[in-house]
Amino acid sequence: MKAVAYLAMILVAFGTFFVVRHFGESLVAPAPVEGHSRQDAAGPEPAANSSAKSSAPSSPHQLAHVLLALAVVILAGRLLGIAFRRIGQPPVIGEIVAGILLGPSLLGRVSPAALDFVFPTTIHGTLGIVSNLGLVLYMFTVGLELDGSHVRDRAHATVAISHTGIVFPFILGLILALFLYPVVSTDDVPFTGFALFMGAAMSITAFPVLARILTDRNLHRTSLGVVALTCAAADDVTAWCLLAVVVGVARARMSDAVTMLSLTAAYLGLMFFVARPLVMRYAKRWLNTEPSQNTVALLFVGLLLSAVTTEAIGIHAVFGAFLVGAMIPSGSPLAKRLVAILQDTVAVLLLPAFFAFTGLRTQIGLVSGVQAWLICAGIIAVATLGKFGGTTIAARVSGLSWRESSALGVLMNTRGLMELIVLNIGLDLKIISPTLFAMMVMMAIVTTVATAPILRRLWPENLEGGMGG
Amino acid sequence: MKAVAYLAMILVAFGTFFVVRHFGESLVAPAPVEGHSRQDAAGPEPAANSSAKSSAPSSPHQLAHVLLALAVVILAGRLLGIAFRRIGQPPVIGEIVAGILLGPSLLGRVSPAALDFVFPTTIHGTLGIVSNLGLVLYMFTVGLELDGSHVRDRAHATVAISHTGIVFPFILGLILALFLYPVVSTDDVPFTGFALFMGAAMSITAFPVLARILTDRNLHRTSLGVVALTCAAADDVTAWCLLAVVVGVARARMSDAVTMLSLTAAYLGLMFFVARPLVMRYAKRWLNTEPSQNTVALLFVGLLLSAVTTEAIGIHAVFGAFLVGAMIPSGSPLAKRLVAILQDTVAVLLLPAFFAFTGLRTQIGLVSGVQAWLICAGIIAVATLGKFGGTTIAARVSGLSWRESSALGVLMNTRGLMELIVLNIGLDLKIISPTLFAMMVMMAIVTTVATAPILRRLWPENLEGGMGG
Repeated sequence: MKAVAYLAMILVAFGTFFVVRHFGESLVAPAPVEGHSRQDAAGPEPAANSSAKSSAPSSPHQLAHVLLALAVVILAGRLLGIAFRRIGQPPVIGEIVAGILLGPSLLGRVSPAALDFVFPTTIHGTLGIVSNLGLVLYMFTVGLELDGSHVRDRAHATVAISHTGIVFPFILGLILALFLYPVVSTDDVPFTGFALFMGAAMSITAFPVLARILTDRNLHRTSLGVVALTCAAADDVTAWCLLAVVVGVARARMSDAVTMLSLTAAYLGLMFFVARPLVMRYAKRWLNTEPSQNTVALLFVGLLLSAVTTEAIGIHAVFGAFLVGAMIPSGSPLAKRLVAILQDTVAVLLLPAFFAFTGLRTQIGLVSGVQAWLICAGIIAVATLGKFGGTTIAARVSGLSWRESSALGVLMNTRGLMELIVLNIGLDLKIISPTLFAMMVMMAIVTTVATAPILRRLWPENLEGGMGG
Repeated sequence: MKAVAYLAMILVAFGTFFVVRHFGESLVAPAPVEGHSRQDAAGPEPAANSSAKSSAPSSPHQLAHVLLALAVVILAGRLLGIAFRRIGQPPVIGEIVAGILLGPSLLGRVSPAALDFVFPTTIHGTLGIVSNLGLVLYMFTVGLELDGSHVRDRAHATVAISHTGIVFPFILGLILALFLYPVVSTDDVPFTGFALFMGAAMSITAFPVLARILTDRNLHRTSLGVVALTCAAADDVTAWCLLAVVVGVARARMSDAVTMLSLTAAYLGLMFFVARPLVMRYAKRWLNTEPSQNTVALLFVGLLLSAVTTEAIGIHAVFGAFLVGAMIPSGSPLAKRLVAILQDTVAVLLLPAFFAFTGLRTQIGLVSGVQAWLICAGIIAVATLGKFGGTTIAARVSGLSWRESSALGVLMNTRGLMELIVLNIGLDLKIISPTLFAMMVMMAIVTTVATAPILRRLWPENLEGGMGG
């Protein structure tokens, strides 16, 4: 019975896709406008060209500016992080908001000269590479901390909740694309890629932020916490796999999608049937001894090569990094050592570069006029309806109480940092316009900010746990 | 009596400087030749211009190439590091040599296409910034591990040995500059900056490599080991201060040297009289509790701002980083936490970028012909005579046995990674030509490689300690 329902759900998703595609293909999006153009989407500033000379490694100013930019964004992020923690929000929101405030949305309006001094166009390229390097390492640690056995041990019910919580917003995202494409997209973006991307972008859950919220409220060992973490882990794996395919298809623009998909299949085959057994055997060697620095270096090399491969195939480098991390048994001393090595450097030094980079690309000013803000509100509503609604109903059907189900739905609606990673990929690949990027960033922030207070209302009896760290 | 000798030594150094300068100012260096030109020195490739487009953050190829370059250089460095450890050398030499072999000196000769694939010119700029970021963090950890009280507690004798071991090679470097300037420099480099830089470059000791050699041989707790470590620590502080002045003077080209020196004085004043007491008080707060991530972030911000300041003043960013590291009490939980956070990421991921970057800039092919190799041999001889000779004689005069004195001299002659950092600064600032850079890199490698075997002959009774790690 459940299998039939599951199958039906998948079929509905596919059916919706083909129906949406049928109607969508005939839609006409506006031509790219100056200032909203695809060029712009390529980087925070199309002027990067003229700055070639300054990007020479010897330029003392470039190094000084990169260091200054990092100092400013780390400081602002920490201060806002502390402020957000005071009001019961996860500090990472503060860091995300700090990045946006330091970009064209606020600092650029108040003082364009200050923006140009702190983040001159000459360093945008470097900031992009450093932030991508940070993301690769971050997704590697997310993979390392992903407890695969956790998902496998639980009842299939949890996985079913997770999958419904993905399929539902995915379908809504596809339908939403029908309405958004003629308004906020441009005619050089194929509809299919756009619709698939919107579907995937709606389905993301921020596992790390969610884990943090549960830990902050001491809920991570309760049955709700365990179900939520398992769901989120299953979400992570499913949504990222889905996104890899979507990104591949969108990037290949359907023409050489077959090559891309077969290369991806070959890569996955190599990873699961050759690399994984090797890594498992290797990880066992370090069960009782501290892994040496050479071992760590070897794993970094593997991680980098996997990231290069996924990047070269046409899906993003972060997928390769995530997969290598997920292959290493999460409780093993090797995984613990790697997390210990990376987490602070990545969290304190490299992710801020990503927040700054995202902020530079987020131009809230592009969302202007009543219509634009209505669209933005619509995106938030659809995203919440899809993820919160889908998860809540699936959880209720699986036998959880309404209160538990809705709490789970609220938790799964947290998008946080993960959504920003996905959105940056979409902007990089020119699937979404800077305007839509700004709207989606707001959606990510609103859904994430909403989680903690709503959870407190639904689940009030638990007193605040230690909010430290 | 000792004070008189010390004063005499300093006076001799100054006297030599003015005599050398008198003769040197009238020397004429050849005009920059195509291929040896100052332009070249600016970066591994002057062609960085044409690649502006690719340095846009969205270029998928650039990210893939940066990741690939890191993977290749980490793997090669580790493999050669293991090979060098087998023959009783510190692994870092293997990493340095790997960088050079992957550059134009070997890989570029065997297959220019391979060199261009692994390190395309489009990523040189990014590699430079990442390696400088790595150096800033590395010098910060060197500062963190520097035990200032160690130096203060010891007899002044050790500091005197250290200073003699700096002044002597410094004088020899100045004199050597008289001979080198007309041959390997170019006429757009002022003689004074060139001579001062050569003096400072001859006086460097690689504290970290030296510490490693002593630990590998279990000598670090012997009286020789303690004297050597204290000497090297004093060397570090003195030589880097000296170098900061030299670099400032050379960069300012004597014209606005006064501004530079007063800014440096203001910066040092601020650091010692304002920042240091604050840091000391702050560090005390974390004596019994684990420092939080916000504390770590705050210190990173301080480190970055100090590095930006020294970079902006005209001395290099690494000085600012080193100074902040040195200000934090080395045994404190705060220093330990920071070292724990940084050391592996820096050693495994970021320093390899520096080795690759150095390797790309080292063109051993520029050292061609009998004359050039004789000059190279001369540089090695003078460097060794200055550092080994100066230290040995000073140690003997201070009352150590000949055997201890010569062992200390051999240890101080280790230049390793530190020398490479200095040389890269010289190349960045266009004080030394790519040809001289290649010669000095060989000097650094030869003096470092020579240390362990010679020490084994002079100090044979100690059996090999654990060479692990």
